Amino acid sequence: MLLLRRCHSLTRFGPLNTQRHQVTPAVVSCAVRLWRSSSEDGGSYQRAHGPRWRHGLAGLLAGTGAVLAYSLHHHKVQAEQQDSSTVQTIEKTSAFPIISQEEVTTHRSLEHGIWVTFKGGVYDITEFVAMHPGGDKILLAAGGALEPFWALYAVHNQEHVLEMLSEYKVGELSAEDVKKQKAIKTSDPYSTDPERHPAMHINSLKPFNAEPPPELLSDSFITPSAIFFKRNHLPVPQVDAASYQLHIEGLPGGVLTLSLEELKTRFPKHTITATLQCAGNRRSEMNKVKQVKGLNWGIAAISNATWGGARLRDVLLAAGYSPDVAQRAFHVQFEGLDKDVTGTTYGASIPLNKAVNEEGDVLLAYEMNGQDIPPDHGYPVRAVVPGTVGARNVKWLGKIIVSAEESSSHWQQNDYKGFSPGTDWDTVDFKSAPAIQELPIQSAITVPTDGAVVDRSSEEVTVKGYAWSGGGREVVRVDVSLDGGKTWQVAQMRSSEKGQAPGPSPPPGRAWAWKLWEVTAPLPAEAQELEIVCKAVDNSYNMQPDTVPPIWNLRGVLSNAWHRVKVEIREDDNEE
Amino acid sequence: MLLLRRCHSLTRFGPLNTQRHQVTPAVVSCAVRLWRSSSEDGGSYQRAHGPRWRHGLAGLLAGTGAVLAYSLHHHKVQAEQQDSSTVQTIEKTSAFPIISQEEVTTHRSLEHGIWVTFKGGVYDITEFVAMHPGGDKILLAAGGALEPFWALYAVHNQEHVLEMLSEYKVGELSAEDVKKQKAIKTSDPYSTDPERHPAMHINSLKPFNAEPPPELLSDSFITPSAIFFKRNHLPVPQVDAASYQLHIEGLPGGVLTLSLEELKTRFPKHTITATLQCAGNRRSEMNKVKQVKGLNWGIAAISNATWGGARLRDVLLAAGYSPDVAQRAFHVQFEGLDKDVTGTTYGASIPLNKAVNEEGDVLLAYEMNGQDIPPDHGYPVRAVVPGTVGARNVKWLGKIIVSAEESSSHWQQNDYKGFSPGTDWDTVDFKSAPAIQELPIQSAITVPTDGAVVDRSSEEVTVKGYAWSGGGREVVRVDVSLDGGKTWQVAQMRSSEKGQAPGPSPPPGRAWAWKLWEVTAPLPAEAQELEIVCKAVDNSYNMQPDTVPPIWNLRGVLSNAWHRVKVEIREDDNEE
Repeated sequence: MLLLRRCHSLTRFGPLNTQRHQVTPAVVSCAVRLWRSSSEDGGSYQRAHGPRWRHGLAGLLAGTGAVLAYSLHHHKVQAEQQDSSTVQTIEKTSAFPIISQEEVTTHRSLEHGIWVTFKGGVYDITEFVAMHPGGDKILLAAGGALEPFWALYAVHNQEHVLEMLSEYKVGELSAEDVKKQKAIKTSDPYSTDPERHPAMHINSLKPFNAEPPPELLSDSFITPSAIFFKRNHLPVPQVDAASYQLHIEGLPGGVLTLSLEELKTRFPKHTITATLQCAGNRRSEMNKVKQVKGLNWGIAAISNATWGGARLRDVLLAAGYSPDVAQRAFHVQFEGLDKDVTGTTYGASIPLNKAVNEEGDVLLAYEMNGQDIPPDHGYPVRAVVPGTVGARNVKWLGKIIVSAEESSSHWQQNDYKGFSPGTDWDTVDFKSAPAIQELPIQSAITVPTDGAVVDRSSEEVTVKGYAWSGGGREVVRVDVSLDGGKTWQVAQMRSSEKGQAPGPSPPPGRAWAWKLWEVTAPLPAEAQELEIVCKAVDNSYNMQPDTVPPIWNLRGVLSNAWHRVKVEIREDDNEE
Repeated sequence: MLLLRRCHSLTRFGPLNTQRHQVTPAVVSCAVRLWRSSSEDGGSYQRAHGPRWRHGLAGLLAGTGAVLAYSLHHHKVQAEQQDSSTVQTIEKTSAFPIISQEEVTTHRSLEHGIWVTFKGGVYDITEFVAMHPGGDKILLAAGGALEPFWALYAVHNQEHVLEMLSEYKVGELSAEDVKKQKAIKTSDPYSTDPERHPAMHINSLKPFNAEPPPELLSDSFITPSAIFFKRNHLPVPQVDAASYQLHIEGLPGGVLTLSLEELKTRFPKHTITATLQCAGNRRSEMNKVKQVKGLNWGIAAISNATWGGARLRDVLLAAGYSPDVAQRAFHVQFEGLDKDVTGTTYGASIPLNKAVNEEGDVLLAYEMNGQDIPPDHGYPVRAVVPGTVGARNVKWLGKIIVSAEESSSHWQQNDYKGFSPGTDWDTVDFKSAPAIQELPIQSAITVPTDGAVVDRSSEEVTVKGYAWSGGGREVVRVDVSLDGGKTWQVAQMRSSEKGQAPGPSPPPGRAWAWKLWEVTAPLPAEAQELEIVCKAVDNSYNMQPDTVPPIWNLRGVLSNAWHRVKVEIREDDNEE
């Protein structure tokens, strides 16, 4: 309860030493979003909306710098401490009560306590949560086993960590459940998934789907790969770069097979900065209108990176593509190396003209932000289809097929399509809608966050966010309102890192990167609350729709209504 | 007053023999929109919004067929009657009172009488209006001279017409005003403008700007040239096809000059069906929010035609274009042969990549709907830039310049740009916004019209309209609501003339033509009024904004909020 009170007071009054124009430091928002719950299927997590999830843990993350420095800190601590690669079991025999996994699973909230298991022991770590140096990620293990998390973070493999844990022991996990855990561990196809950055808000662990805190997103024009949103459909495949092969099929020259080395040396490297966005970005706003199917993404299933690789166009030409092919083939299918238990790979396709157009800029990328593409983002090679929904940017690319047909995959045929708000699961005909390719105009407010408090004495409020449009359409204006959309002002935009001069304007139809924007405006004298709204306009002058209900759809995709956050203005306390 | 009552009763109860599902025949809407008033500058007309303009004349037009057959009828009548090419002055001397033009000008409404002048005589034709075989176009002359109108319609050059007119004589125009009229006539740069179809709703006479009645628009997938919306910026130039020359400049090969014959024979003819839309289409809805500058277009400043001509790409290649040129040149400027009094021509430009892209489909068109392009649409050659705002589809094309710069014309630099609703004429910086090129997603309801009445006994209501998006983005869905946007149903779309099978789907990014759509739905049992709303979605899943105020802009362009019409449900009168 102490924890809860502490959190509430922080959320309400904000920490001391806040910079004058910064209405709510990142930490408060991080804290109120820390808490999630595994859903019944064990795969997806629900974002905090209802009062049940409004608990928060504040002060664990001390802002952007601290979050990004976390991994570094880990490594340093590890080097300073004694090396202890094998961990011993703490208790061999025990007088603790036997507890079932079912019982443990009920303890995954501050209300009901935070229980975890480790090597057959059950621990009530509720009191420890606030002291955990690693912050919120400890909560990911709530109600379950610590092992998969400790395996990700080697810093835990130390005697003193085990000693600390032992203080919280409350029982022994039943022998049957221990056996089950072991079985799960060995058969878990996700056991080889890579370590992830603890700043990420996890929407699903298996497959891994996570987004960065919005405040971090608008700090960098180029999103660091570690906090670039991650949307996996299947386990991350283990690909050996030395033996990697990419097959290109469906062209007159027969099958072309390329090694990674050949891809890098036979074709010129082309570099683009492109924003990728999940079709489900901002789905949580649709869920508030009426339940949809899908991961409950906030506003950060979008990120911007610099990608390097061979042009798909060049590779297709090398494989025998000529304009004649376009008479019989209309699609380029991609197959990933990620597989489900039946061996079915992830797949998607894009229109052939996007693939072969000189101005399409489609890459077979092997670099992300100047380094090898990380495992979560498609190592060693992924498709980058700029301006096009994330789902077509197939990762861990194994095969490219030029075809008369779209990909027959579930994700192309029966998912990632938009429908009328009147269409439900009883009436939906997936054939009636086209697969999403280019995405519509989008923008959102990253700072302040919903529910933030701003002091009257600060006199001004600074609003920040991102804006992007699909199809290479450049964002030309962002309008911001402090009064729910009655009056509007135009935001300042930037298309480079802060302080750097922007590059030359992209040619028409090739504006692949987002813009970050900012407005600083006086606090309206009479207002007690601000309803901050943003809407962007692209160079086809497409605008975002005003409200969510008329664009609601059963899959919760394409959520691009005006983004709204409410901020309380706290009058200064002059009585004291 | 009889006329007024007749009109009102028609509007209220509808004509007999209405087809069951047709809530309001075209005629009623035509009638209520007949009446317009010249604005003070003599150039623009205001659409009927205020109560002052709610008078109508019904029964003059008997529906689509009759309207489209009108010109034909004229010719037939003309042939049957005696040829009389010179018209004599009716009165040489007169005891009629002397009346000033100022006084005549005050009589241009049914309330104040309809007066016109002809060869120095003043006529009160109020009683004649309903009998005029040519329908509403007689009203265009209200308060002014008949000559320019009779010059357009040769059928008036007959003795019996003059005899009829003489019955309505009420005075002699003052000698001074007669002199002025003659001076205007001879110096009027619009005196050679072509004859126009009487069905058109005129928003400005000089320059000529007019749109068809919405009901006619959705009758034909291909809009007949005669009722294709007309948006001229200057007088229609008289171009002699035999001596016509098109100059292409700015390419390594020097200036290329082509005759019309050369354009037709040196380059393959390419045919596309493309919708053109004025940037100001639906401006009247913005005017209802707050006054904007510009012609008060309804929903019909959009039309669809089949265009034939040489590809601009082919002509630029012939003139020396190569990809090297794209390193230094980014725009293709068009200059029209239409000029203002200072000799300044109409001009606009498009991005070079649109002009040279194989998939851009930009034409130097010499055919419209299978015939020579009519004078109002650019005879003998115009640019057709599919997917792009009407203003860049330069008519009466005289010169093409490949350039590093956009056109410096007023229309490119200081007009046809979008701004935030918070920007006014004191703060606007035209340099801050890009020239409109591709237009956003659009749709509107053509049937029923706002204020129509539907009988409860009809049980159903049929709603029709158009939908289109710029940039070659195909319309993939139209949602229609009968309850102001609370619930939605999906409309049936067609992409061909009624009863004809549609052609093959356009390749991605080349959907230049609109779609017509239709929904027939049961009348809601409890409703007394329907608020019918439509919104379209294109294949980039861009949607129309919900409301007008947030997209309002000082020039009233890009008006693409949901279109709304209110319809009254009249309960059946069972008492009688």
